[in-house]
Amino acid sequence: MSNESALLTDLYELTMAHAYHDLGMRDVAVFELFVRRLPPERRFLIAAGLPQVLDYLETLHFTPADLDYLAGLRQFPAEFLDYLGRFRFTGSVHAIPEGTPYFAQEPILRITAPIFEAQLVESRIINLMHFQSMIASKAARCVSAARGRRLVDFGMRRAHGAEAAVFAARAAFLAGFDGTATVDAGRQFGIPVSGTMAHSFIQAHDSEEAALRRFVSATGQPTTVLIDTYDAERGARRVAALARELKAVGSPGQIRAVRIDSGDLIARARAVRGILDAADCPEIEVILSGGLDETQIEALLEADTPVAGFGVGTRLDTSEDAPSLDMVYKLEVYADKSRRKRSSGKETWPGTKQIFREHDASGTFTGDTIALAEEVRSGTPLLHEVMRDGRRIASLPGLGESRDRCREWVARLPSALRALHGAQQIYPVTVSDEVRALAHRLDQAGE
Amino acid sequence: MSNESALLTDLYELTMAHAYHDLGMRDVAVFELFVRRLPPERRFLIAAGLPQVLDYLETLHFTPADLDYLAGLRQFPAEFLDYLGRFRFTGSVHAIPEGTPYFAQEPILRITAPIFEAQLVESRIINLMHFQSMIASKAARCVSAARGRRLVDFGMRRAHGAEAAVFAARAAFLAGFDGTATVDAGRQFGIPVSGTMAHSFIQAHDSEEAALRRFVSATGQPTTVLIDTYDAERGARRVAALARELKAVGSPGQIRAVRIDSGDLIARARAVRGILDAADCPEIEVILSGGLDETQIEALLEADTPVAGFGVGTRLDTSEDAPSLDMVYKLEVYADKSRRKRSSGKETWPGTKQIFREHDASGTFTGDTIALAEEVRSGTPLLHEVMRDGRRIASLPGLGESRDRCREWVARLPSALRALHGAQQIYPVTVSDEVRALAHRLDQAGE
Repeated sequence: MSNESALLTDLYELTMAHAYHDLGMRDVAVFELFVRRLPPERRFLIAAGLPQVLDYLETLHFTPADLDYLAGLRQFPAEFLDYLGRFRFTGSVHAIPEGTPYFAQEPILRITAPIFEAQLVESRIINLMHFQSMIASKAARCVSAARGRRLVDFGMRRAHGAEAAVFAARAAFLAGFDGTATVDAGRQFGIPVSGTMAHSFIQAHDSEEAALRRFVSATGQPTTVLIDTYDAERGARRVAALARELKAVGSPGQIRAVRIDSGDLIARARAVRGILDAADCPEIEVILSGGLDETQIEALLEADTPVAGFGVGTRLDTSEDAPSLDMVYKLEVYADKSRRKRSSGKETWPGTKQIFREHDASGTFTGDTIALAEEVRSGTPLLHEVMRDGRRIASLPGLGESRDRCREWVARLPSALRALHGAQQIYPVTVSDEVRALAHRLDQAGE
Repeated sequence: MSNESALLTDLYELTMAHAYHDLGMRDVAVFELFVRRLPPERRFLIAAGLPQVLDYLETLHFTPADLDYLAGLRQFPAEFLDYLGRFRFTGSVHAIPEGTPYFAQEPILRITAPIFEAQLVESRIINLMHFQSMIASKAARCVSAARGRRLVDFGMRRAHGAEAAVFAARAAFLAGFDGTATVDAGRQFGIPVSGTMAHSFIQAHDSEEAALRRFVSATGQPTTVLIDTYDAERGARRVAALARELKAVGSPGQIRAVRIDSGDLIARARAVRGILDAADCPEIEVILSGGLDETQIEALLEADTPVAGFGVGTRLDTSEDAPSLDMVYKLEVYADKSRRKRSSGKETWPGTKQIFREHDASGTFTGDTIALAEEVRSGTPLLHEVMRDGRRIASLPGLGESRDRCREWVARLPSALRALHGAQQIYPVTVSDEVRALAHRLDQAGE
């Protein structure tokens, strides 16, 4: 991702940057990233995407080709384009660690930099943090619903483009998925990859029996086969016969699991489980897929469906029930003065802020306060400095470590927040008196 | 996009490719890409993404680093990896032109290639065609709703990653949008870019009046300003006063339009229009944005809201009401034998097929037939060969030409199909007797 173009931004960031440059406005600005309100079906969100933001900020620069394109727009003077050619991000970043649950209005990332720089990076920072956070939040719901069953991301084909596919796999793994089918995500992030066959492999043979036999033989190791190309129960009987034969001859190719991808999954899984057990193949697992999400996973398990794992695709990678978050990046301070937007329905809390999270004796989180960063308060402060003068202060936790943090911190949420449906449980998030007083003073004094 | 990784695929494509290779299955397969059913709020879809598919197929190859990663998975023998290292796509592609409206079950792209190759490219072909087609289809609804008002894509920040942002801008332009805020889409595809200021520019000044004046001065050309940072009507009065002054002195910087991004847009646009007109500034346009989609655009115009253009963001770039299509890529023929999947609810029509589209004397489309490609039928065949032996046959139409085609072909749909809501108007799509007979024969004969 480090070769991405500096032109991956909204034009207005460059138009404003030009105006700031032209007007000599070089003071430091503080921008904060937050979600204004949660989608109806979310009680918490998971922070994700920070390493990609830092990669972006560390490598951001305009190439001669970028500058040529901008010159062709005939709206930027040559002197400004020269300045862009020398531009590097020199600011600092504070952020909450990846894998941390967060709530509406809480600043999860803060940029402190000359206003030109802090403004320019808005579009891509939102783009990076928004998508991974949205997917991690959806994935966390699937993980809760799956009660320990294996979960694999199958969503690449209907993810919104290449980057979405790879980052969805990453965000899902962060939130507790076991792996992905997307090979490039495995390569880029070390996520376990899995995947064996599509229906087309069965169809390319004149008989399902021959297809199964030949696939296992070619694969030469324990594998998963699809059994619903024509008739899932007949497929299961064929698998059972073949599995016994393979075991008898000690073949390196074995059938580890069968996958069902269509029809009434509860009834089919039960029938197939029964066939496999009756044929003395209790070790062959049943895997389910096909338009699944957390709601269907929950329903399958509440019906005691015999299933060892799920492939979750389109509805995960698109966050189908909430395909966007109301995530914004807002100016809070410029030239040491706090700032407040008052557009109807889009008002902001001014000042440089921090989140303080409290917990009870058992470790369960009991509430957050959004306070000024300078306030001295009880509770754990969640935002930490991770970049200074445009360089990382230290290496971030690895993806596995962030995944552990996510599991632990989600487990520490009040249990009602982890329920999938029903009335939205409100986790207590309060805005400190100091922040409120600051907002009031700005409303009185200024525009 | 031509440097993308061959590993941007599902692992099962490689697992199957290995099995085909190992089993010596090198016969030609025909796969077709189609949407099984339309989302509830869509009466037609727009084909988009073909140039990106051809770029992908022409450049697809495995690098030594790709092969090293695959070797590390310890499931592919070295001989197969050597083979992958020499792999290039050698097949042919038939497709309907970009910008063409299409319907459920209609094959919009056909790959004919040795099964190994045709299978391997499945995941990325769906990923590319699915996203652009989904966005173009959403954008076409916005274009219908906007009745000729200017439409600009503002969605980059909440698009699902970098590629989604750029391709959403492309697909929206194809479907009739006038431009995008995403600079990289302008550079890559020659789409007009626009964008001037965010609320933060206003907030960074101690007074809105000073911010407006300084922005116009720095920009030095006709521009659009935001007026709702604090109070839209007060902002409009300031703009009117400033605009008169700028005109009086003949400043190169002028105010061309005001943008309102919050609140009750109907009431605010009317009030602002009234203020501007009363101040003798009828030439200053009102632009609206903020969570818009085709439904709200329609409502704004039905209320006769005085507006010259719209910025459409998140709901366009995520296709918020239908963030995925049920698009699939299915084996229809292998080794000269037609194939049919019969999984419950996912049955396919077998054989190599063509779409024939009929129209009446006025040019309005009256119905399609999905037939075998070899059938001789009336109507316009929509699929054309665009690639042979892994190379383009001729250059595709440019984006502007495809945009013209989209406008023309959408206008030729029965007018009820262009209505946004209400009962889903069913355009007649029939499956030919020959296709049905083939399916019946396969069901009788085979698995």
